[in-house]
Amino acid sequence: MRGERAAIIAVGSEMLGPLRRDTNSLWLTERLEQAGIAVVRKSVVGDDPEEIGRELSFAASRADWIFTTGGLGPTADDVTVPALALWAGVPLRRDEEFVAAMRRRWERRGVPMPAVNEKQADVPEGSRVLANPRGTAPGFWLRKDGTNVIVLPGVPSEMREIFDRSVAPELPSAAGEETRRRVLRIAGMAESAVEELVAPIYRKWGDDPVTILASPGEVELHLCARGRPEDAESRITAMESDFREVLGRRIHSSDGESLAAGVGRLLKERGRTLALAESCTGGLASSLLTDVAGASAWYVGTVVSYADSAKVGLLGVPGALIERDGAVSEAAALGMARGALQAFGAGVGASITGIAGPDGGTAEKPVGTVFFAVADRDGRTQTKKRFYGGDRSVIRRASAMFSLEMIRRFLLDSA
Amino acid sequence: MRGERAAIIAVGSEMLGPLRRDTNSLWLTERLEQAGIAVVRKSVVGDDPEEIGRELSFAASRADWIFTTGGLGPTADDVTVPALALWAGVPLRRDEEFVAAMRRRWERRGVPMPAVNEKQADVPEGSRVLANPRGTAPGFWLRKDGTNVIVLPGVPSEMREIFDRSVAPELPSAAGEETRRRVLRIAGMAESAVEELVAPIYRKWGDDPVTILASPGEVELHLCARGRPEDAESRITAMESDFREVLGRRIHSSDGESLAAGVGRLLKERGRTLALAESCTGGLASSLLTDVAGASAWYVGTVVSYADSAKVGLLGVPGALIERDGAVSEAAALGMARGALQAFGAGVGASITGIAGPDGGTAEKPVGTVFFAVADRDGRTQTKKRFYGGDRSVIRRASAMFSLEMIRRFLLDSA
Repeated sequence: MRGERAAIIAVGSEMLGPLRRDTNSLWLTERLEQAGIAVVRKSVVGDDPEEIGRELSFAASRADWIFTTGGLGPTADDVTVPALALWAGVPLRRDEEFVAAMRRRWERRGVPMPAVNEKQADVPEGSRVLANPRGTAPGFWLRKDGTNVIVLPGVPSEMREIFDRSVAPELPSAAGEETRRRVLRIAGMAESAVEELVAPIYRKWGDDPVTILASPGEVELHLCARGRPEDAESRITAMESDFREVLGRRIHSSDGESLAAGVGRLLKERGRTLALAESCTGGLASSLLTDVAGASAWYVGTVVSYADSAKVGLLGVPGALIERDGAVSEAAALGMARGALQAFGAGVGASITGIAGPDGGTAEKPVGTVFFAVADRDGRTQTKKRFYGGDRSVIRRASAMFSLEMIRRFLLDSA
Repeated sequence: MRGERAAIIAVGSEMLGPLRRDTNSLWLTERLEQAGIAVVRKSVVGDDPEEIGRELSFAASRADWIFTTGGLGPTADDVTVPALALWAGVPLRRDEEFVAAMRRRWERRGVPMPAVNEKQADVPEGSRVLANPRGTAPGFWLRKDGTNVIVLPGVPSEMREIFDRSVAPELPSAAGEETRRRVLRIAGMAESAVEELVAPIYRKWGDDPVTILASPGEVELHLCARGRPEDAESRITAMESDFREVLGRRIHSSDGESLAAGVGRLLKERGRTLALAESCTGGLASSLLTDVAGASAWYVGTVVSYADSAKVGLLGVPGALIERDGAVSEAAALGMARGALQAFGAGVGASITGIAGPDGGTAEKPVGTVFFAVADRDGRTQTKKRFYGGDRSVIRRASAMFSLEMIRRFLLDSA
């Protein structure tokens, strides 16, 4: 059985410029996939009735479902509804009750309704109105020659609410096929290293797409299985366990939990608190950790010691050590981690010191050289050295993520 | 004269899923606008030769220029080139010289070239090959019935380089019209407050689009003027000066400089260094500042004092003061700014302390309450209190940006 097919059209000239893009289609795609409807094309057209009409015709030749977003506002630019009526060959009818309701709403705010707004009550004949609890512009559902055309506003919150209330319950779950996805996250490893490990499994699941996405410091494996609900579920579970077999505890999350939140969870489980000392990352690692709600339960603070004097004064790293090994060195990293432990009275201290560039590199320690340390109250310590390619922001991000991953492993080993 | 029209087609099934989207089209749009070519539609299609062919036909009916990105790799999924040949009705011809060159490149790496890669040397007859200095897949330029079809790889760096080297120099600058854009950035003000100030000017320039885009802590005004180069230039300049008249020094940048870089520039000009004390922002403000290359010339460090004990121990805020006013108070903010000044021996100290939520709010100090302070060595001080709606990450981001903006104004006033 071939599943149902959908096309998504985003209407709005602003999305044809270089500054804004359609984001609604990603959300819609996810919802449609869950219902077993595959998105076969997406497009963006300007606020032009003829272009919209042509786009609708083309989409109708490709898909059983068409979703449009945008162009429902009160201004002269907003032409999706008349374009739809023209395309479908039906007249527009003004819903006077709706006009009255809009007018009352404006009056409650103490403002007379601008006349332009009346057009938001124009309904293409034969279409079903989809109520918009969050705004004035309603959506529409129209059938033409076997194609379902669903017209939604462009404001994401309004679009989503209308879809979930009035569209989702009526989608043909009978289509049978559903998509299951799982995202495995691995931090502190290069993409190529992950790829090498998983290549054999990647091939084994050739029919079910696996995508590798890399960002500085983190690699994501997106697994996807499609089929009848129970088949898709059992296949995605088998895929995940295959990947877990080779990656083991390198996978820090498969349920959307961020690395920082995972570190926080481990700290809480072990009843420990964490303090950092950051140099080249300048507060980025600390910022990632404190982005987690409730971080104050396990995170106490950070010294960002950009100037060497702060490494000496606030973290107690001996000036002679910095003189001898440099501020970017294994010894300095260890001194900083221990200093953070002391200064904040924490259970675990971790540090990052490196050269993020573009200046400051030497032949011996080029830009991208970073030292890491973790130390705890029981005297356990660990240090690592890494080298990162890329620009300043890549080096900083990769370093912050590596530090968090190092802390996570350190905590796993101190059960 | 009607300008030339372009359509952009992104090829790749992964961009029809909920996780990835086309970003190449934004960059291409900007380049095309500069050349006076308007983008009239954008679309995304899967790796399916028939769909690609239909999309090319439809785009050709709407535009003088078609740009495709993606689908040029060596794998079986990559079908853009055969689809193009099929659509154009021309055979594919394998370029043996190109195969030999690819093979040499692989051999230099010490690896035999996989046979699948040979297909990257298939050239649709009658098309011009656009060399790819950054990768193996070349681009193509093909003319059909008056439409220029330009086929580019999906890897952004390769796509950009091929466009700039081989396409841009041949675009019809004769089209005459060009677009000028300017982005005015304002930090630490609510979008609605900016909108109220600029509404009259907004209306005055009704024909030339002005877009307001807001992110937590920053509002951007995107000005746009289109016309003959000299007209567009003089109109964008007049627009900017109108907006400057009402916004004055609230505009921190019109040339793309980030707020953090602007703060750094002022500090350097005034020969001062900066230290921070952050509580609820947890290192985010520090991270924004140190994202600027060369920050070590003017930034010395930060204490992220999440635990109250760190406010006392590392920043010297009297415990009795925290006991009396609370850690989220004007007095604590001032104590933290002075403490940062002292602890790092800086020229200027600034602080942020607040309640980012979701927990920790009280009736008197609800979630979103934030206090800020700036202090310098001459004894000048300033404190402010703000209240932010939104979730934890919005409050943190808005607070960090507000602090940087407060430092900027403080520096402007201390000439």
